[in-house]
Amino acid sequence: MKKDYIFTPGPTPVPLEVGLAQVHMVHHRSADFGRMLSEALDGLKYVFQTENDVLVFTSSGTGAMEGAVSNCFSPGDKVAVFNGGKFGERFVEISRYFGLEVLNRSYEWNVAADPRELEKTIKENPDLKGVMLTHSETSTGVVNDVEAFGRIVAETDALFIVDAISSLGALEFRTDGWSVDVAISGSQKGLMTPPGLAFAAVSEKAWAAVEESTLPRFYFDFKAARKTQDKKTPETPFTPAITLVQALNKAIEMMRDEGLEAIQARHELFAKATQAAVEALGLELFAADRSKAFVTTSVVAPQGIDSGDIVRTLRNEFGVFIAGGQGKLKGKIFRLGHVGYFDQFDITTEIAALELGLAKLGFKVEIGAGVTAALKVLSEGSAG
Amino acid sequence: MKKDYIFTPGPTPVPLEVGLAQVHMVHHRSADFGRMLSEALDGLKYVFQTENDVLVFTSSGTGAMEGAVSNCFSPGDKVAVFNGGKFGERFVEISRYFGLEVLNRSYEWNVAADPRELEKTIKENPDLKGVMLTHSETSTGVVNDVEAFGRIVAETDALFIVDAISSLGALEFRTDGWSVDVAISGSQKGLMTPPGLAFAAVSEKAWAAVEESTLPRFYFDFKAARKTQDKKTPETPFTPAITLVQALNKAIEMMRDEGLEAIQARHELFAKATQAAVEALGLELFAADRSKAFVTTSVVAPQGIDSGDIVRTLRNEFGVFIAGGQGKLKGKIFRLGHVGYFDQFDITTEIAALELGLAKLGFKVEIGAGVTAALKVLSEGSAG
Repeated sequence: MKKDYIFTPGPTPVPLEVGLAQVHMVHHRSADFGRMLSEALDGLKYVFQTENDVLVFTSSGTGAMEGAVSNCFSPGDKVAVFNGGKFGERFVEISRYFGLEVLNRSYEWNVAADPRELEKTIKENPDLKGVMLTHSETSTGVVNDVEAFGRIVAETDALFIVDAISSLGALEFRTDGWSVDVAISGSQKGLMTPPGLAFAAVSEKAWAAVEESTLPRFYFDFKAARKTQDKKTPETPFTPAITLVQALNKAIEMMRDEGLEAIQARHELFAKATQAAVEALGLELFAADRSKAFVTTSVVAPQGIDSGDIVRTLRNEFGVFIAGGQGKLKGKIFRLGHVGYFDQFDITTEIAALELGLAKLGFKVEIGAGVTAALKVLSEGSAG
Repeated sequence: MKKDYIFTPGPTPVPLEVGLAQVHMVHHRSADFGRMLSEALDGLKYVFQTENDVLVFTSSGTGAMEGAVSNCFSPGDKVAVFNGGKFGERFVEISRYFGLEVLNRSYEWNVAADPRELEKTIKENPDLKGVMLTHSETSTGVVNDVEAFGRIVAETDALFIVDAISSLGALEFRTDGWSVDVAISGSQKGLMTPPGLAFAAVSEKAWAAVEESTLPRFYFDFKAARKTQDKKTPETPFTPAITLVQALNKAIEMMRDEGLEAIQARHELFAKATQAAVEALGLELFAADRSKAFVTTSVVAPQGIDSGDIVRTLRNEFGVFIAGGQGKLKGKIFRLGHVGYFDQFDITTEIAALELGLAKLGFKVEIGAGVTAALKVLSEGSAG
């Protein structure tokens, strides 16, 4: 008997109730779907903590990232991308692709972006039109200080665009409170829904920029999306992934029941339990700055072991899916997910599988030490 | 007791087996998903009747239409769009949006596009780079002669781009046999799957054009999609709608069991039964050319009745969802869908609801005449 456990930092486990919400389907030009989409938009405002318009697209999160660039800027506009991992790189790539002048503020992959670097960039570039930041950099586990960045960008004419794809619904995230002009997310991480929906919360400051922007966009056109969603019976411009909207509503209902603060406390506790377990096993945590790294725990592979072998062993031997390193970290780190639909026994299972896997690969591991360390943290917290 | 019946020409009814295939989810960077995507790509080649690459995008069909334009052309390229309804108009809109020079070959909405008009256009425009045609124009029910168009375009350097969104898997469609360079479709019509996946089958001639094209595309980049799909373990460039791929595979398995020819014969029979019923009720069929109009039957609303009232009456009184007119046909026609997961009793139910609805609206209707006419056609055919 070998069950499958999705412990990757995305897609994340989907509650059965959410999965089942996909089965029945309604027509998307109907009062029924209008009510569903209204409910989804209300729910998204809750998880984004915003009064801004939240737009819904049928795509991966990358589609909404492209939309943020193509709707807010014009060729030659200067933007600063704070880039500390694969998803920071994606913002660089999309921005360059669309002909923006990109200040690539790359920083070490194991630390957070430095707000002083932003201050310096702004001082040196009074013509800056945008600042892009990844909240939770899924490829490294590092979480950036969106609040500090937002405070600085808000005093300029630049837009603050944040990739909150893997953080939303897991970490504290205040779109309005932190002056985020375009906050981007997707269905398949903290929102516990299968992949296929992307979201963009757009501020008034961003809408003003949309009016000036000359880059081409059709499928990801923000104004078209706002126009159809603003109707009395909200719609999307093109046929949406109806069954995923149904699933999202079920997931947000569950999130409202648990409450955002409780969800965030749970993610923090599970991250700390995972970190304690990793250290108890004599392994090195990759992220130097772990003050908010509660979405995924990145771990340096032990000397002489390729992290890909750890990932493969856990998958093939035990049905446990964790993630390897991406880009320049391929083979060097592995990533333990704990975002979204996780309870405390998922954490102990994840650590147990890691212990068995490491032992199988010949790494000297004190069996039980990781699980014990995790349990100690869990028993001290309130993992309810 | 009032059940819901989705009899619109998209989204279409989803078999319970297909709906249920969404419930369980696998990780999209895994051998399991690689096998699923391989199966989907094989299945799509079967329904597209092609050896070309078939690309899979998480989006509505419109996303793949945008991709066809942005991947194959450059600003100023001259294309002829044969436009006889709302979806023909969309091709005009997208092409103009991306700065192409558009020859808008609009024709009456109740007839098919005339291949002689294409010949004339080609003669007058030797620099033509592309021809766009809608196979089944969902907004009118009219079906175009893709084969005749393809034969003509194939003798030129122009690309032949066909919107097969509502026809694929319902009507005969031969991507290779009819020289279609980019064939576009979506999951939610003949393929009996919920909306959220779009497809593009791309010929070698089109791939050569992609190399020359300078229009911007990122999320809908054809080459990026081909590169990841061509791997030993196929992937998509960005996180796909995993649960919809699972559903698609179940649907195509059902389609293989029935067989494409049998499916097409079923659609033809049901269309003819529906047409007979409409005429027996003394109503006028909208499409003058019905030789291949087997996806949806468009009907002129009786004198003095707004077609929207018919649609609303059927929805509100009986839970039966049919479609109204779009664009300039709003209020004037209604559309009876019979594409995808329909059996013969869906047809009689649809007609029965129409009879009851018309009677309720005060239209003099001989109750039972429509259903009887439909049953006669069905009993002569092999609707099994």
